[in-house]
Amino acid sequence: MIELGANRYGKAQIRLVRVVRGAGPHRLRDLTVAIALEGDFTAAHVDGDNSLVVATDTMKNTAYAFAKDHLDGSLEAYGRALADHFLEFDQVARATVSIREHGWSPIPTSRGAAADAFVRTGLATRVATISADLGGTTAEAGVEDLVVMKTAHSGFAGFPRDRYTTLAENADRIMATKVTAIWRYGAADLASDALHAAIQATLLDVFADHDSPSVQTSIWLMARAILERHDEVDEVRMALPNLHHWRVDLAPFGLDNDNEIFVATTEPHGLIEATVRRGEG
Amino acid sequence: MIELGANRYGKAQIRLVRVVRGAGPHRLRDLTVAIALEGDFTAAHVDGDNSLVVATDTMKNTAYAFAKDHLDGSLEAYGRALADHFLEFDQVARATVSIREHGWSPIPTSRGAAADAFVRTGLATRVATISADLGGTTAEAGVEDLVVMKTAHSGFAGFPRDRYTTLAENADRIMATKVTAIWRYGAADLASDALHAAIQATLLDVFADHDSPSVQTSIWLMARAILERHDEVDEVRMALPNLHHWRVDLAPFGLDNDNEIFVATTEPHGLIEATVRRGEG
Amino acid sequence: MIELGANRYGKAQIRLVRVVRGAGPHRLRDLTVAIALEGDFTAAHVDGDNSLVVATDTMKNTAYAFAKDHLDGSLEAYGRALADHFLEFDQVARATVSIREHGWSPIPTSRGAAADAFVRTGLATRVATISADLGGTTAEAGVEDLVVMKTAHSGFAGFPRDRYTTLAENADRIMATKVTAIWRYGAADLASDALHAAIQATLLDVFADHDSPSVQTSIWLMARAILERHDEVDEVRMALPNLHHWRVDLAPFGLDNDNEIFVATTEPHGLIEATVRRGEG
Amino acid sequence: MIELGANRYGKAQIRLVRVVRGAGPHRLRDLTVAIALEGDFTAAHVDGDNSLVVATDTMKNTAYAFAKDHLDGSLEAYGRALADHFLEFDQVARATVSIREHGWSPIPTSRGAAADAFVRTGLATRVATISADLGGTTAEAGVEDLVVMKTAHSGFAGFPRDRYTTLAENADRIMATKVTAIWRYGAADLASDALHAAIQATLLDVFADHDSPSVQTSIWLMARAILERHDEVDEVRMALPNLHHWRVDLAPFGLDNDNEIFVATTEPHGLIEATVRRGEG
Repeated sequence: MIELGANRYGKAQIRLVRVVRGAGPHRLRDLTVAIALEGDFTAAHVDGDNSLVVATDTMKNTAYAFAKDHLDGSLEAYGRALADHFLEFDQVARATVSIREHGWSPIPTSRGAAADAFVRTGLATRVATISADLGGTTAEAGVEDLVVMKTAHSGFAGFPRDRYTTLAENADRIMATKVTAIWRYGAADLASDALHAAIQATLLDVFADHDSPSVQTSIWLMARAILERHDEVDEVRMALPNLHHWRVDLAPFGLDNDNEIFVATTEPHGLIEATVRRGEG
Repeated sequence: MIELGANRYGKAQIRLVRVVRGAGPHRLRDLTVAIALEGDFTAAHVDGDNSLVVATDTMKNTAYAFAKDHLDGSLEAYGRALADHFLEFDQVARATVSIREHGWSPIPTSRGAAADAFVRTGLATRVATISADLGGTTAEAGVEDLVVMKTAHSGFAGFPRDRYTTLAENADRIMATKVTAIWRYGAADLASDALHAAIQATLLDVFADHDSPSVQTSIWLMARAILERHDEVDEVRMALPNLHHWRVDLAPFGLDNDNEIFVATTEPHGLIEATVRRGEG
Repeated sequence: MIELGANRYGKAQIRLVRVVRGAGPHRLRDLTVAIALEGDFTAAHVDGDNSLVVATDTMKNTAYAFAKDHLDGSLEAYGRALADHFLEFDQVARATVSIREHGWSPIPTSRGAAADAFVRTGLATRVATISADLGGTTAEAGVEDLVVMKTAHSGFAGFPRDRYTTLAENADRIMATKVTAIWRYGAADLASDALHAAIQATLLDVFADHDSPSVQTSIWLMARAILERHDEVDEVRMALPNLHHWRVDLAPFGLDNDNEIFVATTEPHGLIEATVRRGEG
Repeated sequence: MIELGANRYGKAQIRLVRVVRGAGPHRLRDLTVAIALEGDFTAAHVDGDNSLVVATDTMKNTAYAFAKDHLDGSLEAYGRALADHFLEFDQVARATVSIREHGWSPIPTSRGAAADAFVRTGLATRVATISADLGGTTAEAGVEDLVVMKTAHSGFAGFPRDRYTTLAENADRIMATKVTAIWRYGAADLASDALHAAIQATLLDVFADHDSPSVQTSIWLMARAILERHDEVDEVRMALPNLHHWRVDLAPFGLDNDNEIFVATTEPHGLIEATVRRGEG
């Protein structure tokens, strides 16, 4: 017997820009939205019956329409409005809205910050995922593509050696990574733009300040600090590639290289992932 | 109380080419390998103690060394050898090896197929994931980036309409997608290069031959056929973006467009995901 | 005094799919088109006067409209029709149409090649550039992203050594590259789909068959063969990255590596560019 | 007769990070370097004679070695040192060094700016190209990937209409673009890090402040301002894609859209290129 298992469908890569023009400077939000539905869709798969299949084109239209009236608050509030809307369909058991926000800043000019001209800022991509089912709504938020580097206070030593180990111990290496950090709020309505900014600041603060014996420990320290300083957060998941910077051997050219010249690489890279959470302790 | 949850680490994007030169034509395999370990790594996170942390550089070295002696059989056999090796470390509870294979074909020449010159063929990327723990070993295999199009026998109609629905019913549309299909073998040692090729052929055969009322149904039919024709497979997961091809309105230019001229798009796209499996029936 | 120099404008990334359905199998062309105009556009820049500025949106519309009636012949014939059309505007001194074709093949099925289902084939991207001005029309054609590898008959030795040279001589290396080859036809109307296929076959034939002392020599031999075997071609330009494959040192693991296991890299890479042409000799 | 035409070769994608540690905060430069040589390389192509072919691996080594001693000044000074070095080879007629700089900023922390921890900032990529031959040395500099948007003071109207024109006139549109701007210094030794920053500020200042009737006029105004305010610059080349933001029609959903909700697109896009220079007047 062959049967349908888990399934979901939706619209991805909905590109949406909203400009609010008022008395003061324009406000700009630039989003990429994805919507996914789970529920009673067996007939659509097995019988070719589309009568319950909300068109993904309709999802796209709804995302644009809701941007008009539901995007004055936080990113997560917009996601909640969309998720709640789709949960109203009887056949939908769970609606998930995933949002990526692309950052823009007013252009600095000789007359001050521009009111209606912006430059993309690449510090990081803000992400949010809102998931609603009949049991309630959860909100996760975070950052992707936050590229950071420590040029001191990082090492890797004391690891086991076997037949295949050639790596030297290193008390002073560069640690470069592209942070993905996702945190889960204790309740969906705790999320706000200001809280997101504060959590990202905590993450950067700890990254800059700690001594790192391994990427694993760095993740632990950053995630623990987020939980300690921000009661609204219940769990933090982080995934950090270790983008190796190898010291170049300049000795053949008669030159020293006292941790000054490095080759930056992306292939291969380490990949370290961990979840840190409030325990039942 | 703050505690460490799920965690894993390893090396990703290990690029590896193996050339076997014998009496006949060269044999070429071009792989990207990732290795991830789970197990007793709490001290590494919480105490900065690396004494159990097999260096990811060691994983890379091992991948190259094992390519010398363990890559004569299938992709999955190489993955099993690597996973079993890392499971021998006491601190490792699970080792997962993920492999992507990049296809090459002998160059056709005026003297026949070349013996030692190859051209990259982009039909699809073959993937395999081997996961070993003390309970045994599982093997998943599949394809990614298999880009296909039906220029007939596809439609989408009968879907519900609400305030936000503007999509017209369509009895004859283009269906274009980039298939990701992953199947799980009933036992890890069933996997073989020949079986992989046969399963991919089944997938393409059904894609070309069926009438599609929706991407959901197409997934169901392709996955069901794989299960029906290949006893070795227990479960198939598929993820198909719906890469919309919109009919261009040529009427303003005094021209008909009887499903002939389309604009190909990637943003936004539908995204349809489902698992099909043998039930307990 | 500040003045306008060379300028041009147009539309890029016009994505266009054409399906021709007749009695037999469907015929499918999948193109990305760019159009650029040069001419009398000083007022548009200096005075903000758009009265001569054909909208790039109009260019896009024209590309779709012309696909209806002008794409039965070769890619280059379609490009010529478009270029000639834009040259009819008085203010246009030169119109350039650049086309990239994405390859598709009928899906092989158990009942033979499918009539209306296709799979993307990644052997290479076919390109064509048609440029028309009052003096006439030129046609260039070629391939991009043709990824090829020689696993024998390639070396690099005899190069000069200075203070900064550490590379060893190598009589037997892998040569891997992603070929860009552009050839100029002696007359624009010589271009045809069949001729393009024949020239690509020549290129691959020589790549597979020659002994390579350097990428430079490989370019010379391939380009010379195209000129020798195809009278229609006046000039060939080639750009070949040298995608290094480094032999992995397996000695620390007690293993030989007789040119069998390599690490494939893309950064950094050599980049070799040359033009070969019929001389006035 | 078949002959070799223009040719050049070199190393591309040399990734290089330099960290200078002194008493104060670390200084960090992160570069991608390419080197290309032209000269007497006919024998390398035609005869397979490598005796004059400086290995591209040697170029890479030289780039790293020179980073040790020649990167205290501007990016362009490092490029000049490298170009002059390669011009010393008798067979080299021209050496071109192209550099892309990836920006990093000290991480802001609760204790002030970090001394040894950095975050990638994506405002733009700084570029420089130094080209040296026996006649002298030229320096070009500029920015790539500078993504900017005007949410007011941009329109496009008054353009000609023909059979294929459907675009409406628009007095108030979004103008979004990814600026590539390259300027040529009157003398190579005028280039400096401070001057580069000042020119980029001019570009942004004019972008934010002007009324744009077309992308063409925007280019003219920005480039002219650079030439007017910076005597060191002789010529400015700009290439601006027009990344269309289409107003979404919300009327079917009973909503107004007074230039508030847009769909951001990248395909197709306009592409406007122009050079502005000091004339002979």
